[in-house]
Amino acid sequence: MTDAIPPFSPAEYDRRLDKTRAAMATAGIDVLIATDPSNQAWLTGYDGWSFYVHQAVILPMDGKPVWWGRRQDTNGALRTVDVSRTDVTGYPDNYVQSVDRHPMQHLASVLADLGHGGARIGVEMENYYYSAKAHMALAEALPGAVLVDGTALVNWQRGVKSAEEIGFMRKAARITGKIQTLAIERAAPGVRKNELAAEIMAAGITGVGEDWGDYPAIVPLMPSGSDAAASHLTWNGKPMVTGEATFFELAGCYRRYHVPLSRTVFLGSPPDYIRRAEAALIEGLEAGLDVARAGNRACDIANALGAAMDRAGIDRGARCGYPIGLSYPPDWGERTISLREEDENLLQPGMTFHFMPGLWMDDWGLEITESILITEDGPPEVFCDLPRRLIVKD
Amino acid sequence: MTDAIPPFSPAEYDRRLDKTRAAMATAGIDVLIATDPSNQAWLTGYDGWSFYVHQAVILPMDGKPVWWGRRQDTNGALRTVDVSRTDVTGYPDNYVQSVDRHPMQHLASVLADLGHGGARIGVEMENYYYSAKAHMALAEALPGAVLVDGTALVNWQRGVKSAEEIGFMRKAARITGKIQTLAIERAAPGVRKNELAAEIMAAGITGVGEDWGDYPAIVPLMPSGSDAAASHLTWNGKPMVTGEATFFELAGCYRRYHVPLSRTVFLGSPPDYIRRAEAALIEGLEAGLDVARAGNRACDIANALGAAMDRAGIDRGARCGYPIGLSYPPDWGERTISLREEDENLLQPGMTFHFMPGLWMDDWGLEITESILITEDGPPEVFCDLPRRLIVKD
Repeated sequence: MTDAIPPFSPAEYDRRLDKTRAAMATAGIDVLIATDPSNQAWLTGYDGWSFYVHQAVILPMDGKPVWWGRRQDTNGALRTVDVSRTDVTGYPDNYVQSVDRHPMQHLASVLADLGHGGARIGVEMENYYYSAKAHMALAEALPGAVLVDGTALVNWQRGVKSAEEIGFMRKAARITGKIQTLAIERAAPGVRKNELAAEIMAAGITGVGEDWGDYPAIVPLMPSGSDAAASHLTWNGKPMVTGEATFFELAGCYRRYHVPLSRTVFLGSPPDYIRRAEAALIEGLEAGLDVARAGNRACDIANALGAAMDRAGIDRGARCGYPIGLSYPPDWGERTISLREEDENLLQPGMTFHFMPGLWMDDWGLEITESILITEDGPPEVFCDLPRRLIVKD
Repeated sequence: MTDAIPPFSPAEYDRRLDKTRAAMATAGIDVLIATDPSNQAWLTGYDGWSFYVHQAVILPMDGKPVWWGRRQDTNGALRTVDVSRTDVTGYPDNYVQSVDRHPMQHLASVLADLGHGGARIGVEMENYYYSAKAHMALAEALPGAVLVDGTALVNWQRGVKSAEEIGFMRKAARITGKIQTLAIERAAPGVRKNELAAEIMAAGITGVGEDWGDYPAIVPLMPSGSDAAASHLTWNGKPMVTGEATFFELAGCYRRYHVPLSRTVFLGSPPDYIRRAEAALIEGLEAGLDVARAGNRACDIANALGAAMDRAGIDRGARCGYPIGLSYPPDWGERTISLREEDENLLQPGMTFHFMPGLWMDDWGLEITESILITEDGPPEVFCDLPRRLIVKD
């Protein structure tokens, strides 16, 4: 079933539509416009690297969802959704990147034809794929409608994973384990960073056995030495050198489901301040894992970590994790809960997080993280089984 | 110089800032907010996969540009821009993906502190990285300012490449040639698509000699058979089979500069309709290349191609190309000119395009494309030197 199109069972898509429609009803939304490619895929199965032009899933309270996009991409939609359950429609190519017309004008006409011209229409105001101009064009073209902020409405429904989704994430986790192990094994003085990145990407896409790898929503982050003070650098052509730490923040991806994980490799003998930070980080990770239980709150994890950091005198100044699952570039997080002091959302069985307490100091960095599944009882399932420590290669 | 930080000379960045400021003056913009990561990199050299949170380059008419982003990413900015020429400032982490506060509120305070609270501020209304919510938050937080649509203002300045940029693109082209050749050589019945994708990605990131490969802004598009009717599918775990065409749309990337190219491989003996389409496409490509000259218009290329398509009775229904250069996901195009009938922009020496007449029919597809540089006189420089035909492996 590694090539099923769409990837999940009809019952799973029913569950998703029902859950989303209930949230729409609560929010007073008659029809939802999902411009986030992750939400489109989650609702219908649509999959393709076409999100650089405007596209959306139109989800009414009754009847089929409609995938709407560039006409040349309707062939992709017809091949990735279940056409008995999702309608497909496209706009002409002269709407693409034009200053004279905007795809949202076309969407407005589709919505009007479907009888939604006077509806309360939910739009994802805070999304990479819903620009300020898109909002203005849609509002102008639908003067009788009320545009309601439906930011993250679908994302919130994605938080608790089904058994099918957890199965996908366990497959992703095996890929993650494979590429982290490879990075740790291959890291050595003289190895060019880009050549290591090439091996990591190839191993991830090759996957594990029948389970082929998909592209991760973020490329390998793997800065070394002083550059590891920066959280989002990628790679360059320089060789690794003795005396430097390199963190590897990598995700295996199985059919768009991600399990990210970070480990840090030190070539040579680490200085005391890194050893002390490692000890504090592991203590904090374990304290956080211990409270990552159904019924506790997101902030409980952050506070447990924070106590260990405080004892070590380390000011991280950043959230320590986020929900994970299905995603497209540019982010593999779900952009709902943040593991931080102010977030009091309750943890529920089936939620999945990247517990990510990266340390990015002035001149060095250290990442040791875990991706987890909140269980019915007790501590979380940890997706990967890698040594939870700084990897020292002396 | 393959690891210079930032990648270009001070004179090159001066050229860019001067050109952009002249365009700002023409547009009546006092200060520009560049939220597009490609524009940020082009103006300052900033490079990092941090664009999933809000960030921008603030460009005033006088004085240094300011890179503004998440505080944990300021370390990345300090390591990728020339700090003698670009200031760096960050916002606290509790602005990230919050429903209580928006990063644009912080940007507003930075702008006010810099004395721009009553300015005419250019914003990129149509951009992945300037959401509807971002615009609303910025406008609310700066009631004294006038927000002016500066969509693609910087993108237009990027159109004509400098000699330094052309040098980067020639390096990217060598990587493109390498990975296209690899795809053509390795394609064979029984080869799993994901394993071929893995090899292609690895070869691209490995690069050519000293010139290490960067991640392309779009992953390999390489659908087979009926799936090749869709323009933006990626890969799966299925083996290639005899009797099917697979197109490979791939870009080499050198320090964020892209040279995309497509070739199509047919395993077995192609049917007559594909042979006829191939002949028409090559005729159209050559006719288009012949008019891709300084002083002609973008539409001249499209019309030359279109005449050949019309003679063959093929209705493509899509633009046939776009400008290329520096880019970040999700698109490697520059989103200014489109090679299509209605676009009368003049071609200028130093402009670079992906001339991309893909055919996506009901049940099959064919892509044979070229990336080109408009020259002072005569026909364009074709970046890659691959056989301009359907590759048949019988």
